[in-house]
Amino acid sequence: MKISANSAATANGVAGPLSRVFEPVQTQLDEVDRRITAQTAAFDPAIEGYVAYAIGGGGKRLRPLLALLSGGATGSLGSGHVDLAVIVELIHLATLVHDDIMDEAERRRSQPTVNARWGNSLSVLLGDVLFAHALNLATDFDDTRISRTIARTATEVCSGEMIQTQRRFDLQLSREDYFRIIGMKTGSLFACAAELGAVISGAPEETVARLKSFGARIGTAYQIYDDCLDVAGSEAETGKTLGTDLRKGKLTLPVLTLLESASTFDRERCCSLVLEGKLEEVTALLQNSSTDGALDKSIETAAELIREAQAGLAPLGTNQHLDALFGLGEALHELLEQLRS
Amino acid sequence: MKISANSAATANGVAGPLSRVFEPVQTQLDEVDRRITAQTAAFDPAIEGYVAYAIGGGGKRLRPLLALLSGGATGSLGSGHVDLAVIVELIHLATLVHDDIMDEAERRRSQPTVNARWGNSLSVLLGDVLFAHALNLATDFDDTRISRTIARTATEVCSGEMIQTQRRFDLQLSREDYFRIIGMKTGSLFACAAELGAVISGAPEETVARLKSFGARIGTAYQIYDDCLDVAGSEAETGKTLGTDLRKGKLTLPVLTLLESASTFDRERCCSLVLEGKLEEVTALLQNSSTDGALDKSIETAAELIREAQAGLAPLGTNQHLDALFGLGEALHELLEQLRS
Repeated sequence: MKISANSAATANGVAGPLSRVFEPVQTQLDEVDRRITAQTAAFDPAIEGYVAYAIGGGGKRLRPLLALLSGGATGSLGSGHVDLAVIVELIHLATLVHDDIMDEAERRRSQPTVNARWGNSLSVLLGDVLFAHALNLATDFDDTRISRTIARTATEVCSGEMIQTQRRFDLQLSREDYFRIIGMKTGSLFACAAELGAVISGAPEETVARLKSFGARIGTAYQIYDDCLDVAGSEAETGKTLGTDLRKGKLTLPVLTLLESASTFDRERCCSLVLEGKLEEVTALLQNSSTDGALDKSIETAAELIREAQAGLAPLGTNQHLDALFGLGEALHELLEQLRS
Repeated sequence: MKISANSAATANGVAGPLSRVFEPVQTQLDEVDRRITAQTAAFDPAIEGYVAYAIGGGGKRLRPLLALLSGGATGSLGSGHVDLAVIVELIHLATLVHDDIMDEAERRRSQPTVNARWGNSLSVLLGDVLFAHALNLATDFDDTRISRTIARTATEVCSGEMIQTQRRFDLQLSREDYFRIIGMKTGSLFACAAELGAVISGAPEETVARLKSFGARIGTAYQIYDDCLDVAGSEAETGKTLGTDLRKGKLTLPVLTLLESASTFDRERCCSLVLEGKLEEVTALLQNSSTDGALDKSIETAAELIREAQAGLAPLGTNQHLDALFGLGEALHELLEQLRS
């Protein structure tokens, strides 16, 4: 496994395979990191410290990566791409602050979450302020398509989160519902990053649509990976509290697959374990061949999405940034394989 | 006291004196109400019901009123003004949802708050979704000045809320801090409504600045009124839980004035009562002449702000809408006088 020069990218330990695809845009990503850090100065001195804490934890910067690679794949990278990358990451960081409240999460990126440190009230407002600031930056683009797409995506991300919260502990949740939810809460922001990266490069609409679709699929596959990680990962490696989805009643693809494949008798037992959030027992079942390996099946589903995403790029030919987008799929696939039981 | 035709305006019982100034823009305000109700359709069916509940409680519509009167005072009212009015009200409604979480409030506008009904997690996300949607609508304006001003104001409102939360139970809070906080959390959105109403009418910059300043002062005076109401109002008349500021450690103008005017010996006792949130005792002290009537002094401060706001409009001459803006000051003054001890 290659060691990345990007300290933010290696901070969470899963970024090894990903680090390869960061290379073509490393200069711009460093600038994105500097610009994100510099955002604290845009806030009132009284709240600067909280903002710095919320945005300072590093992270994989996958959404900025997608914005930059998509921009580079379709034209010449400029300051507009960096602005876009900063905005999509800030929206993501704002949603993380609110997510951690929902999940009562204690740790993220190996440090206490904002809610664990300063309580829920302050976290609600800190998320709001980050979110408002990101949309604020979006209105600086003169092309209103960009600010509109970002604002619509923000609404979609929040709506997805809300439906997910509403459907907690709901054993009626179908695979279709699950895909709709993760498409909204994660796929849409990945899609927005890739779409607008190409828009800023002045790419033709068909190319923009291809990149948007790539982003949506990769984002969805990434969310499946993240959901599998929650039941099959290691806390030491990921730096965050695991098993959270199960404890908070979020029914993710591996669990839905398990419930689907269980026999009527088993299903009742599985449902109880899931509703009671018995992480160890559920993890064992997920990896059990008698349940047809629900974890492996979920990994397969994500891998299929990655292949579709890559196939959609093929007509665009090849260049350094397109190759890196293709490589992003490979890297995600590699990460998924590491979770196999 | 005249009975208004606007049911939303009378729903909370304080709008009697205010109803007069609604008249010149009643047609547009009815349209604003219809448009706000119609916004639910913009959301995913799964969350429509929550959105309808959060935005359906009526309310005084003061920010839409200001947007419309300012627009009418400086030009001809059109659909852009109605759009603006809808957006500023949605931002306000989003902040109310999150405020009620902070305050653990049980009732607003005589019905259970969103958090009382569906819990904090869902309320956090519902506030987010309303907020994102409002900023989304703002990007529909072709004039980027409008979406930029709205996005910047949203950041300011959230920052003000955050500083207020951070300074709870902080007896070091000065009057200056208080005015900065309420200027951000309330004054800025009133200012934005009045400013952009005039911008949409194509008013000259000096006129825009006068209306913005009017909005900022009236908004600040209104917040002082609301803060006085919390210690001196009646729950039956306001339809919301009172004494909340004190219980949650928000030091408002009447309380700050009380602490300032208390002798060293009394100050210690006052501080204890305030920190312990003893509403009855504090209310009695606020109305006590031995403390120089801290409530009356606060009312005086708000009245002075109203006079300054009105004086700033004088150079603009007179027309039906300008008169109503002037009358808004009078009505607010009348409401303040009703709280006198």
